[in-house]
Amino acid sequence: MKRDEIEILLVEDNPDDLDLALLALRKNHLANRIHVVRDGEEALDFLFCRGAFHDRSFENAPRLVLLDLKLPKVDGLEVLREVKNDTRTKAVPVVVMTSSREQRDMVEGYQLGVNSYIQKPVDFNEFRDIIKQLGFYWLVINQSPPAEAFVRR
Amino acid sequence: MKRDEIEILLVEDNPDDLDLALLALRKNHLANRIHVVRDGEEALDFLFCRGAFHDRSFENAPRLVLLDLKLPKVDGLEVLREVKNDTRTKAVPVVVMTSSREQRDMVEGYQLGVNSYIQKPVDFNEFRDIIKQLGFYWLVINQSPPAEAFVRR
Repeated sequence: MKRDEIEILLVEDNPDDLDLALLALRKNHLANRIHVVRDGEEALDFLFCRGAFHDRSFENAPRLVLLDLKLPKVDGLEVLREVKNDTRTKAVPVVVMTSSREQRDMVEGYQLGVNSYIQKPVDFNEFRDIIKQLGFYWLVINQSPPAEAFVRR
Repeated sequence: MKRDEIEILLVEDNPDDLDLALLALRKNHLANRIHVVRDGEEALDFLFCRGAFHDRSFENAPRLVLLDLKLPKVDGLEVLREVKNDTRTKAVPVVVMTSSREQRDMVEGYQLGVNSYIQKPVDFNEFRDIIKQLGFYWLVINQSPPAEAFVRR
């Protein structure tokens, strides 16, 4: 089972939030390889191996997608819907990380099959701690899906 | 939003594994209210509020289901399939915790929409640490679905 070196796909358009997330991830030595995309269309291109990412393959899925909701072009819930509705991508663990306090976003996220839903704390130290826990959980504790999970059925 | 006091539904038939899991959960003060069921049919009755659990309601879902795979009556993957195929239960976070090393179980689990998949370590200290991380992640870091997520659509 060959895996891409990309461990985390970070989908975030807000430059401040992105810097904080990258800082927290690196501080915790949690991801040697993070790929950042800044809108929902690029996230879908990456995950569906098309456009600028046509040389990627489905079985080299990232071990974790950290998905913001309010994104340009295609919003986060639509990204989630497409990922969870296709057997080639459904197995990818997707964690929504949002500053939205909208309950309907959470309800829809869970109905669409999000793996986990996290609210970004405002305080940086808290945010760093959450990133640490989250990275440890998904990259160390959780058994990432094997390449065989990413096929068309 | 009223929630049941049951935080974790633990689905485990092996008495040794059950004792270890309960010990680890309690050692980490992670669950004031754990409900234990010992086969897949009872797990489905609990989650679908029927049989002995007809007085429960869907919106009082547990915050976490810890699901073994090899279960009497109805196996764990079938429990997972039914839970993730019904909009009244789909949002419940389900973590498979298994000693199975069968890759096809993992592939099927992810295809059915498991939230996370964990292999039980053999060593008790390791097992206790994993329970601690897992409980902290799902009961503290993750935003549990609100009552509104558990409706028929």
